[in-house]
Amino acid sequence: MKSSIIKTGLFFISFSLLTAPSVCQKRLQVDAARIEKRILALAEIGKSETGNQRVAFSDADVKGREYVMSLMKEAGLTVRIDAAGNILGRREGKDPKLATIMFGSHIDCVPNGGSYDGDVGVIAALECAQVLKEHNVVTRHPLEVVVFSDEEGGLIGSRAMIGELSDKAMDVMSHSGKTVRDGIRVIGGNPERIKEAARKKGDLKAFLELHIEQGGTLESEGVHIGVVEGIVGIKWWSVTVEGFANHAGTTPMDNRQDALVAAARYVLAVNKVVTSLHGRHVGTVGRISAEPGALNVIPGKVHTSLEIRDLSEKTIDLLFSMIQEEVIKIERETRTKFTFMLIEPISTPALTDERVRSIIAVSAKELGLSSTLMPSGAGHDAQDMTHLAPTGMIFVPSVGGISHSPKEFTKREDMANGANVLLQTVLKIDQGMLDNH
Amino acid sequence: MKSSIIKTGLFFISFSLLTAPSVCQKRLQVDAARIEKRILALAEIGKSETGNQRVAFSDADVKGREYVMSLMKEAGLTVRIDAAGNILGRREGKDPKLATIMFGSHIDCVPNGGSYDGDVGVIAALECAQVLKEHNVVTRHPLEVVVFSDEEGGLIGSRAMIGELSDKAMDVMSHSGKTVRDGIRVIGGNPERIKEAARKKGDLKAFLELHIEQGGTLESEGVHIGVVEGIVGIKWWSVTVEGFANHAGTTPMDNRQDALVAAARYVLAVNKVVTSLHGRHVGTVGRISAEPGALNVIPGKVHTSLEIRDLSEKTIDLLFSMIQEEVIKIERETRTKFTFMLIEPISTPALTDERVRSIIAVSAKELGLSSTLMPSGAGHDAQDMTHLAPTGMIFVPSVGGISHSPKEFTKREDMANGANVLLQTVLKIDQGMLDNH
Repeated sequence: MKSSIIKTGLFFISFSLLTAPSVCQKRLQVDAARIEKRILALAEIGKSETGNQRVAFSDADVKGREYVMSLMKEAGLTVRIDAAGNILGRREGKDPKLATIMFGSHIDCVPNGGSYDGDVGVIAALECAQVLKEHNVVTRHPLEVVVFSDEEGGLIGSRAMIGELSDKAMDVMSHSGKTVRDGIRVIGGNPERIKEAARKKGDLKAFLELHIEQGGTLESEGVHIGVVEGIVGIKWWSVTVEGFANHAGTTPMDNRQDALVAAARYVLAVNKVVTSLHGRHVGTVGRISAEPGALNVIPGKVHTSLEIRDLSEKTIDLLFSMIQEEVIKIERETRTKFTFMLIEPISTPALTDERVRSIIAVSAKELGLSSTLMPSGAGHDAQDMTHLAPTGMIFVPSVGGISHSPKEFTKREDMANGANVLLQTVLKIDQGMLDNH
Repeated sequence: MKSSIIKTGLFFISFSLLTAPSVCQKRLQVDAARIEKRILALAEIGKSETGNQRVAFSDADVKGREYVMSLMKEAGLTVRIDAAGNILGRREGKDPKLATIMFGSHIDCVPNGGSYDGDVGVIAALECAQVLKEHNVVTRHPLEVVVFSDEEGGLIGSRAMIGELSDKAMDVMSHSGKTVRDGIRVIGGNPERIKEAARKKGDLKAFLELHIEQGGTLESEGVHIGVVEGIVGIKWWSVTVEGFANHAGTTPMDNRQDALVAAARYVLAVNKVVTSLHGRHVGTVGRISAEPGALNVIPGKVHTSLEIRDLSEKTIDLLFSMIQEEVIKIERETRTKFTFMLIEPISTPALTDERVRSIIAVSAKELGLSSTLMPSGAGHDAQDMTHLAPTGMIFVPSVGGISHSPKEFTKREDMANGANVLLQTVLKIDQGMLDNH
């Protein structure tokens, strides 16, 4: 953490005099109370006893989007909905020839979700626009605040924006019970003209996303701001263990080919391999079931899974091969057979722009906030956007690292810190800090 | 094995001269080809590509019962169906004051079952009656060949015979899709008069059941006959493991409360504890599932199970307490919580009659067959019958120890050996060998 601050600090000194926002702009501050008020108002939409149900394309999603669009108008933004259902709130800049600086996140949530996840990024982005309006600051570049559609269903809105939302992906059933295609219609998009949602390379000067961390690193290390290095790659495998089902009463212990005993050794092997290697990679077995699944029958087959995530695809592959070595031993010792089937599509690691990372870190430093470089273990629209424009991501702490849960929580001051860093980053990029690097 | 043969051999010498069957009766031999022919004929009824579907109360069960009743009549037995649907084929003895010697098994099977399970015991019992008829042997005691109803659904027929089939048990849905109550009607019983199926203590001189072993012990030890010491007790627990569900991408490895990692350690602990203690007890984890069960979520909850079987309830309880000790360690080290819920009804160990065991072993020896004392790891109607009369069980080898499967198989000579031992045991008991012990 310290080294990254020092490095970006030096980098900043080298050109800050040329292109930094004016002193007046540096004094701009977001309104923490307003951010919190809006987060709580949004939380009411889709609220249930077991968490927020504002899943993409639901009635609550439509209502939430109406609320957000009203805030965009309040901030003086010109609102449109693109063919993918993404909401875009635009503010023209001084120079019509310059590319757009885009920033935002999403407001749809998982079933039984929380009230912070993407919401904080959207409300913070709107806060930046609101503050600029209130202080009559006109940027050089046009600005666009974006609310991506159906992030939790597979980054639908951002995939369309980079021109990669396939017909097949629109056939998938969303959390709302509608297909993605029908859902896009419900929120005002046009699936038949989905190609029109795609933006061209060069259209955007930069893309920025603020998001809650969804993990406990910032909180446990006492750091204000996470500067995201990249969004990890993810590989998924469906795993089958074949033993031999037999009578649990009449088959002696030494004559069993128990697929569940083998699977138990596999679960522990995954944990051992992943924790044996230094780094921030993770490996998870999330799914398991035994066949025939009766209390009095030795399991003949187990269906289970494997997920590995890391910023480096090489590390993912190394971990997988280490797990394979353990599995060969388990197969021999338990007289079972394992089959691993890679599940498509694979999510490859997506790195953020090194210059944007520096600008975020400098902005944090100027605001008196500590920051640290970190990977994002979760997927985000920003990972798609790395294909379209220099991209940066700002993380703020999640209390207890809880995510995708009604217990999810981010403190008011942390939301405001993140929004201030976002605002200053936008202004620095507007002033040309990206070009001079 | 050797010691049991010696012991029963000495016991036999002490009274064989007084009460043994006549030399003529000792020469009686079953017809191996006829047994096999009938087994194969019965196997045709309910046959399907995935195994035999002659589940209790199905059309195939009704047809199988008709076939068996025709064989009873061929053997000169008087056939009746009791209130529980048990088929009873009776043959009067010389002395109407003497109690009945009953022997038999069941012909219903599990879904996708095999063609040997209870069938061999029924066909062997009928063979004994057929041979007695063909040689005009009239026993002193009346004989009854029994075909119990719905054994695989919870020993329904034998429970009724000992007066313990409750109203609640008759409400249960059977494999046929009918309730036990409706099923009993279908096969000619009368659930309203179920109490009439109960036999009084003293009614029966003895009960004998021949069955395939359903395990691989006899085959792997090269022994012809298993003399069953008793039917093991069974305890079942439903087990819940509570951890904390969290995002698999954003939660570092050292900050997880992974319920599946804990459950995996539990599965291996059960296996370790059960195999660490010398004996023929078994312990099995047959069921497992994780919540929420997604590839990308750390399991917060796991539902699993425990089954322990042994001839001694003390051993079952000792094993359970040893597993509990391991679980306390697992809870502490994985920050999870285990809950064990005992599932009723518990099946308590049921010991066979020591004198009957000896008579079976002596009968085997006289026929030149090896035998060994062994527990039955599976449940049988005989376990109910131990409450009503001195009970004995004869096991014959199962190839590969396979059971409850279309691959289940017992060789012709092994079925004939078992039937010969059954016949000689019936005759020895008829001659009073039980009383003189």
